Amino acid sequence: MKIQAANLIIASSEIDSNLYYATKFLAPDPLIFIQTVDEKIMIMSDLEIDRAKDQAKIDTVLSYTIYEEAAKGRGIDNPNTADILHEFFQERGIKSLVVPSYFGIRHAILLQEKGYEIEVKKDPFYEERLKKDEKEIDAIITSLRHSEDAMNSAIEFIKDAEIKDSILYSGEKVITSEYIRMLMTKHLLENGLIAQHTIVSCGEDSSSPHTEGSGPVIANVPIIIDLFPRSISTRYYADITRTIVKGTASGEVKGLYTAVSSAQELAISMIRDGIDGKDVHNAILDHFKTLGYESGELNGRMQGFFHGTGHGVGLDVHEPPRINKKSDILHAGNVVTVEPGLYYKGIGGVRLEDIVVVQEDRAINITKYPRILEV
Amino acid sequence: MKIQAANLIIASSEIDSNLYYATKFLAPDPLIFIQTVDEKIMIMSDLEIDRAKDQAKIDTVLSYTIYEEAAKGRGIDNPNTADILHEFFQERGIKSLVVPSYFGIRHAILLQEKGYEIEVKKDPFYEERLKKDEKEIDAIITSLRHSEDAMNSAIEFIKDAEIKDSILYSGEKVITSEYIRMLMTKHLLENGLIAQHTIVSCGEDSSSPHTEGSGPVIANVPIIIDLFPRSISTRYYADITRTIVKGTASGEVKGLYTAVSSAQELAISMIRDGIDGKDVHNAILDHFKTLGYESGELNGRMQGFFHGTGHGVGLDVHEPPRINKKSDILHAGNVVTVEPGLYYKGIGGVRLEDIVVVQEDRAINITKYPRILEV
Repeated sequence: MKIQAANLIIASSEIDSNLYYATKFLAPDPLIFIQTVDEKIMIMSDLEIDRAKDQAKIDTVLSYTIYEEAAKGRGIDNPNTADILHEFFQERGIKSLVVPSYFGIRHAILLQEKGYEIEVKKDPFYEERLKKDEKEIDAIITSLRHSEDAMNSAIEFIKDAEIKDSILYSGEKVITSEYIRMLMTKHLLENGLIAQHTIVSCGEDSSSPHTEGSGPVIANVPIIIDLFPRSISTRYYADITRTIVKGTASGEVKGLYTAVSSAQELAISMIRDGIDGKDVHNAILDHFKTLGYESGELNGRMQGFFHGTGHGVGLDVHEPPRINKKSDILHAGNVVTVEPGLYYKGIGGVRLEDIVVVQEDRAINITKYPRILEV
Repeated sequence: MKIQAANLIIASSEIDSNLYYATKFLAPDPLIFIQTVDEKIMIMSDLEIDRAKDQAKIDTVLSYTIYEEAAKGRGIDNPNTADILHEFFQERGIKSLVVPSYFGIRHAILLQEKGYEIEVKKDPFYEERLKKDEKEIDAIITSLRHSEDAMNSAIEFIKDAEIKDSILYSGEKVITSEYIRMLMTKHLLENGLIAQHTIVSCGEDSSSPHTEGSGPVIANVPIIIDLFPRSISTRYYADITRTIVKGTASGEVKGLYTAVSSAQELAISMIRDGIDGKDVHNAILDHFKTLGYESGELNGRMQGFFHGTGHGVGLDVHEPPRINKKSDILHAGNVVTVEPGLYYKGIGGVRLEDIVVVQEDRAINITKYPRILEV
């Protein structure tokens, strides 16, 4: 028997996108996935074995229970996952394993104790996930179009609102962040997408980039709307942010908007195969500085531009490559967000986020939704 | 300086319920959490540091960037998470770490290389998560009541359907699994819960316990509805399953229903502090066998009763303790599902799932929704 190495993942494919990518099978509980040079194998519980045989895009589905019985036959009273794997690996002559960086330490230790050599592959575990093919780009665009429609439904609703004492009303009803979030979430759900943690933050709340926002929506101050839903059928995400003001934006907010908008254009103009994300990110910081917008800790809080410029989007909403202060080379086929922002206490925040596809000589902006500040 | 041990988790609190339990802070990207005897600490990116200071229920929030700069000052060009932790642990005199079973192997290896001793704590990492307090039970009951309302909306809709050529219609429109799923998902969303992977399976599909179901809903065969939504505000799940037949159930299906229903009652009557889940599970298998229902592989597919009897419900939809073929002692304060089922090719499946609270001398069934087969 030839001694061979195998990739090993033990995870829930609902959480681990590498596992879903490799198997196209969704299961809520951890499953065992092994990949040799020429075979993809899953070892499944009684509950999932037949569904896996029907649905998983792999070669071989084996029974956890059968290996469990075999281990018991060898005198192991209460076999654990490592015991089950040991039964299987002995059958196949597998002695060395390649696991992802996030592979659980307990499984690793138990396998090492049985004599298995474990090599940790640095992220990304599947490099090919970073380079999207046409079908994947289509899936992201479909999620993005529905996101743009949802964004539009929110912005049109805000456009139609009345202002009384600086608060937005729809007829007699106060308009809240929660209401606008629900409006978009329902719209997306009806189109087959799940949105969670959608940001609808306004005024002071908008100066904290990840604050989801709550309560009445206020006129004449920034409203940041950031949504990143996932398609239930394809599982590909989209990600889009717009900042609007209902009524009149102050000169300060208009200044932020112009700066962020031009920073986004600058970044997109730089993106192409081979560029370092760090250079794009630093160009934005320089651009902001030139325009007089300082970034860093000011009066005890982070202000200015203090998050990454962008991240890959695919089966995860945040995936490599990253465009931030760490070096990371972009390649043709990457699909990344470009989302500069500026945030100041007492003024609020402005963020604009589009998605681009990296090509040999340029970036194609696949986000079509317009950027308009005052509505 | 006293040398001390510390718990360490590096994860996204949106995925890792232990981390959310410990911090009550939700973040999409991995964060660093350290717990000493008397202090909970998070080390946060520039993006999240101020939100963490505002929202996290912990003692100390520290800046990743500051430790990163310190590591650079020591000549490390591109410091990784282990380098950042090394800076912090040196400050505190921490040399030994306790991590959960799923702690990522790469972080573990990098820390071990720096001389840290890593002890893996077996699941559950926070034992206190298993014993629900009154507030947690209230949160689960609230999620459950909304789930029951959603279940009721689906069953009432099916009750009102017309049957033409064995297919369910609402007026001229064919009723599909997808439509009923959407009906319940929207109902839940409006009440502040997110439902994913809701099962609405009928006929042959219902003989596969985790098949979500698709296409027209059929009369006179089992329809399994299983929903397990999570509250957006409390993050506690509920879990409920009902099986119905629109029209007339066959004698075989009625037999399955009676068997599953009595199995559930039997299980609930056994559950109390100190009982082994394995004994409850085996009692159900025996009960089914006595009634003539065999379980196991029949004609190349798993049939009969081939999943666990129940699982803990809380911040995760599937959490310890488990009621299945493995030994696991139940304790007062556990909140578990009781969900026997029987599945046969050519007949379909029947599953009934309630949630019970384990007490000293009995189990309290907190699910109020009635069990009715024919509607």
